[in-house]
Amino acid sequence: MPKSTYLDLVKACDNFPYDDSAGPIYKLYLPNDDRPHGFMLPEIVENMPWTDDFEVDNENLTVQLQQRPSTSSTTAFARVINSAIENDVFDTLHGKHSELYPILGARHPVQFERFAGDLFGFIARGAHLTIYTVTDRGMMIWVPRRSSHMFTYPNKLDTTVAGGVPAHQTPFENVVQEADEEASLPADLIKRGVRAAGALTYQGLSTESNGAKESLIVSDVVYVYDLEVGQEVKPVPKDDEVKEFYLMSVDEVKAALAREEFKTNSAVVMIDFFIRHGIITAENEADYVEIVTRMHRKLPFPTTG
Amino acid sequence: MPKSTYLDLVKACDNFPYDDSAGPIYKLYLPNDDRPHGFMLPEIVENMPWTDDFEVDNENLTVQLQQRPSTSSTTAFARVINSAIENDVFDTLHGKHSELYPILGARHPVQFERFAGDLFGFIARGAHLTIYTVTDRGMMIWVPRRSSHMFTYPNKLDTTVAGGVPAHQTPFENVVQEADEEASLPADLIKRGVRAAGALTYQGLSTESNGAKESLIVSDVVYVYDLEVGQEVKPVPKDDEVKEFYLMSVDEVKAALAREEFKTNSAVVMIDFFIRHGIITAENEADYVEIVTRMHRKLPFPTTG
Repeated sequence: MPKSTYLDLVKACDNFPYDDSAGPIYKLYLPNDDRPHGFMLPEIVENMPWTDDFEVDNENLTVQLQQRPSTSSTTAFARVINSAIENDVFDTLHGKHSELYPILGARHPVQFERFAGDLFGFIARGAHLTIYTVTDRGMMIWVPRRSSHMFTYPNKLDTTVAGGVPAHQTPFENVVQEADEEASLPADLIKRGVRAAGALTYQGLSTESNGAKESLIVSDVVYVYDLEVGQEVKPVPKDDEVKEFYLMSVDEVKAALAREEFKTNSAVVMIDFFIRHGIITAENEADYVEIVTRMHRKLPFPTTG
Repeated sequence: MPKSTYLDLVKACDNFPYDDSAGPIYKLYLPNDDRPHGFMLPEIVENMPWTDDFEVDNENLTVQLQQRPSTSSTTAFARVINSAIENDVFDTLHGKHSELYPILGARHPVQFERFAGDLFGFIARGAHLTIYTVTDRGMMIWVPRRSSHMFTYPNKLDTTVAGGVPAHQTPFENVVQEADEEASLPADLIKRGVRAAGALTYQGLSTESNGAKESLIVSDVVYVYDLEVGQEVKPVPKDDEVKEFYLMSVDEVKAALAREEFKTNSAVVMIDFFIRHGIITAENEADYVEIVTRMHRKLPFPTTG
């Protein structure tokens, strides 16, 4: 079986072309804001059940949300998304509603349903916490295996605690909540010891070949956190998203990465952890600089108002 | 006095336009390699004392080093650089020779004199080590003030230990050597405790207004390292590059950053340190994502062969 390099794993997430070879892409604009907030593939624009709150310009490849005195931007998106769900237009929605995410960098708060985000190409926020312990065998990392019934990436290895960050939470608040829900770890343990350690950004073109239900443009910001714990701390599955937690050595994690056993973006979180902890270095990894820059891609959308 | 934000400080290094608004720029090519290795401003191309080893194409804005059986690429650059130094063509060379740097990502080893690198727009490698100690006042960071006679950034605050990485060293080897030369810290102390923690990349247009001798395109990779030491460890100036070391609290460093007291790229190293150590977070810094991506710019040149 061929082994993936670290750069292969980063490119699997950050695979949207850096040049214009992706072909025609629509840019999505909010009212009174000349900065695009999403990229859309033509087949998605064509099938989206737009209302007249949106102006689609097939010549300039833009979708412009109109300013309406009576309709908020959040409501305008909700109408379109509700219609897409009701009529089961897109496989990625799988006919379900989902929690509200914010449009990052919008000048007024705008929210959309999580599962619809990649249709519009909005940035999605994630928060990933890596929990590790130092033993006489060296550093050991707590790695969960996702449940087999998960809609995305069933049975894959994952970051110790990971979730999408809804509109009503900050990344830190989300990590605290997910640590309880996914790993039975109490809030005070997390708050006392967790360390924010940066953010990873990448842009990908999901296709059926890499596990997506349809072609989508994925733009993610993943806030990363570290927590060193004593050997007495053991994460235990609580909700039904995690099958089991393993305490893996660095070498075991490296081998699992090479076998592509990790969820794609959790592999990148693990690689960043190895870089920040001096495990992957400029001396032992020829692609070091390429890896570091590809996992911190400057997204073509604003992240502040 | 106006205070600089963290994003202002990052932009001061990463200020080369992301669009084509920089105007005409020449691309520099090595033999048998279709990837550019440097960007050059037209006035530099015009004044460079090219030999016939180089083909300058003013229509396509390229400079192509020719393949010669008898002349290595390193020699071809040396001839041009020697001539520029002898005839005192560029202020940035200030008539002096300097140590050899590698062209990163070249398919065969090619070297150039450090001071000439920004004329060709090559990537320069730096290595920065931040040394800190944890006291009952919290984290304290060792911060040197540069000597007043330094050619660049005299009297500015700096990373604890910092240097350019010459061709004959790896970043780690450079840090070990500089820790001895600049801070009198023994190699075994560094090797025992230092942690590689990533790389920062940015591209800037240096102009006289931000301290450069002439307009230059600066493309840097800065390898960053952390070292936590006990309170008994005290860096002491040894060579004449450092005037004095201060043990500064996080708040004191923040205030000095806001006053623009740090050398420009050392400010970015400090900001990255604060991000990796959970001092600057998504919750307390609105520009968090923009800062993180701008300090990890994907440079338009290869970094591996």
